[in-house]
Amino acid sequence: MVRFVVNAPPLITLTTDFGLKDAYVGVMKGVVLAIEPRARVIDLSHEIEPHGVAEGAFLLRTAFRYFPPDAIHVAVVDPGVGTSRKAVAIETAHGIFIGPDNGLFTHVLADQNAVSGDDEALRGVSGVELINPQYRLEGVSNTFHGRDVFAPAAAHYARGVQLGEFGPPIKRVALLPNSIPISRGTDLVGMILHLDRFGNAISNLRAHDLPATPVFEIAGTEIEGLSASYQDSRLNVLIGSSGFVEVAVQNGSAAGTLGLSTGDTILVRDRT
Amino acid sequence: MVRFVVNAPPLITLTTDFGLKDAYVGVMKGVVLAIEPRARVIDLSHEIEPHGVAEGAFLLRTAFRYFPPDAIHVAVVDPGVGTSRKAVAIETAHGIFIGPDNGLFTHVLADQNAVSGDDEALRGVSGVELINPQYRLEGVSNTFHGRDVFAPAAAHYARGVQLGEFGPPIKRVALLPNSIPISRGTDLVGMILHLDRFGNAISNLRAHDLPATPVFEIAGTEIEGLSASYQDSRLNVLIGSSGFVEVAVQNGSAAGTLGLSTGDTILVRDRT
Amino acid sequence: MVRFVVNAPPLITLTTDFGLKDAYVGVMKGVVLAIEPRARVIDLSHEIEPHGVAEGAFLLRTAFRYFPPDAIHVAVVDPGVGTSRKAVAIETAHGIFIGPDNGLFTHVLADQNAVSGDDEALRGVSGVELINPQYRLEGVSNTFHGRDVFAPAAAHYARGVQLGEFGPPIKRVALLPNSIPISRGTDLVGMILHLDRFGNAISNLRAHDLPATPVFEIAGTEIEGLSASYQDSRLNVLIGSSGFVEVAVQNGSAAGTLGLSTGDTILVRDRT
Repeated sequence: MVRFVVNAPPLITLTTDFGLKDAYVGVMKGVVLAIEPRARVIDLSHEIEPHGVAEGAFLLRTAFRYFPPDAIHVAVVDPGVGTSRKAVAIETAHGIFIGPDNGLFTHVLADQNAVSGDDEALRGVSGVELINPQYRLEGVSNTFHGRDVFAPAAAHYARGVQLGEFGPPIKRVALLPNSIPISRGTDLVGMILHLDRFGNAISNLRAHDLPATPVFEIAGTEIEGLSASYQDSRLNVLIGSSGFVEVAVQNGSAAGTLGLSTGDTILVRDRT
Repeated sequence: MVRFVVNAPPLITLTTDFGLKDAYVGVMKGVVLAIEPRARVIDLSHEIEPHGVAEGAFLLRTAFRYFPPDAIHVAVVDPGVGTSRKAVAIETAHGIFIGPDNGLFTHVLADQNAVSGDDEALRGVSGVELINPQYRLEGVSNTFHGRDVFAPAAAHYARGVQLGEFGPPIKRVALLPNSIPISRGTDLVGMILHLDRFGNAISNLRAHDLPATPVFEIAGTEIEGLSASYQDSRLNVLIGSSGFVEVAVQNGSAAGTLGLSTGDTILVRDRT
Repeated sequence: MVRFVVNAPPLITLTTDFGLKDAYVGVMKGVVLAIEPRARVIDLSHEIEPHGVAEGAFLLRTAFRYFPPDAIHVAVVDPGVGTSRKAVAIETAHGIFIGPDNGLFTHVLADQNAVSGDDEALRGVSGVELINPQYRLEGVSNTFHGRDVFAPAAAHYARGVQLGEFGPPIKRVALLPNSIPISRGTDLVGMILHLDRFGNAISNLRAHDLPATPVFEIAGTEIEGLSASYQDSRLNVLIGSSGFVEVAVQNGSAAGTLGLSTGDTILVRDRT
């Protein structure tokens, strides 16, 4: 999607629910740069709702294609830290994804056809479990794998350590349920996955999912057809910048005006 | 104001109302670094009030002189995205400014005498409209020009593309009205442009605008003379770190104590 | 704690109470990079509670060991800016610390045995007062030493200026009172220093402070023994990722559930 320059410094993105009040994110960057000082570390978001695995998964999906194909994406939304959930790295044609195995990578894998529907088998991509102590910090905590496991893995990978060195291969990954729209008779049922800062409500429906002359029903309100911009009318349904159907209110908040929450349903039928 | 080292990596600043919850800012950085991996990208603020063009314009003014003169400043507070408003780049003696043509650059241009009062004609600086598709992402959206137009323009400029390559010259820019203090008889009328995190209220009045022995009237309260620090008295009017008259409460919030909002008036008269 | 690569670009961290709404932090980075373009600047936190010196001091303590020993840590939580409080730099075996002399460096110095208890004398480390105008911006303001004094000091130090060049040596530093746990009879009295984003309450007690079979009393609630992870039981006391005793509620907020605030007491006794 964008041009890629060979031999650029390694690029690492971070997506977490750590917030920016604590030093957790800064410490992860310290760990990365102590291991690989050439790395460039870019924040995607640290304001994922605490334990909001689905929100983090969606955000990764909207972002990863704008980075070079060899970018290293670290995501840590990890309510199960310290339990038996796996720590994993999955190498795809468009980025390597490092984080807990809890569904965070559902959308980026689905988008690359590396998983299919609710089948957790990996297809055409390589994954490993991160267990080699050589590429973790000493004395791994039970509470902060972002610092002790995932940041070091990203930095060592950036230095050229091969995927197979980090641990044994995995064949399956955890997936989020209901991550794709479903059909109900002739209607299509999508779901609000994300409310952005402007109150725009972004769904899991894509342009190619829609019928020719769509009518949307959201929170009891019916909206006909797609708008071309946020200024087209007071209430707009449009294809947002990430390629997903989005509900927006002109110079206002769709979430506030319509009382929308993540998980709410968008019903689509064909007017004809 | 600060020393500049030649042949440093290109420096790009970002100012938006995108917030840090979504990945919009991270995606802009991905686009920049995919095109120009040597670029250093610095955040000025992403917490401009949504659609707060005046606030963004003020913030740019307080910041741009602390960056090297060849820094590239991208600002995206852009309620008109997807409409007919222009996308522009304006090259000045102290930075190039890239963003929507909606008044965001009023203060940085006024400060450099590149515009005068409410006259929108550009003076002694070069501007272009960003229309060359070669320097935009393919398939420009109607909703996210930060990613599709402005970030690519900044990165290509950083790589050495000349201003004239981006599109046709512009002779005029949009300006914010009432951006400079006005005289009313012997009094001077300024305006609160910004409330900072500490509740300090920053105005558009500068030291050289003031009479010899100023008396300030703010929200019905009269304050005589200028303080030298935030600890001088309970209620202080002082010249803040950006060179503007600022109202502050000792160890407290002026905005809260006096009930101030942006747009409020500060009246200045001479005591003598 | 982590490996360090020689001849890496200089690493500068920033910790402030400036927030991210204003451009204060971005401007500090502009000043740094105008002086030393090779520097890498990492944010630890800018969301320290306004004037929260104790919170900033704690945060630095949890972070500094994850950075290379030659990292430059700039901290600006500075209610006394513009008064007679000193601006200082203290060079330790694990980082140089630059900021106001108001107790911000209490924990990082105590942790390295560079101060002892409430004795303010520096031991085995070198400190200076930052007064050499050559390494400040011209026209230092009374309100923003982060930009005018501390950022330039960090950048010049990163370029190789020796500590002694910045000003005269200091022999003492300001310390925060009550920063270490105290004994009361056979009990130990600790204090909540920090509530993190998840509502976990982090104290000044460390693992080696505890008796063999500890019983904790927090806000009238008694909790026996240490948990190994956040998922062990509903109410957990555990050794957090920074090595401090931490109170946590499974999939919830300890601060909210127990009504905890910073400054609250944790009483520890031995069950036997």
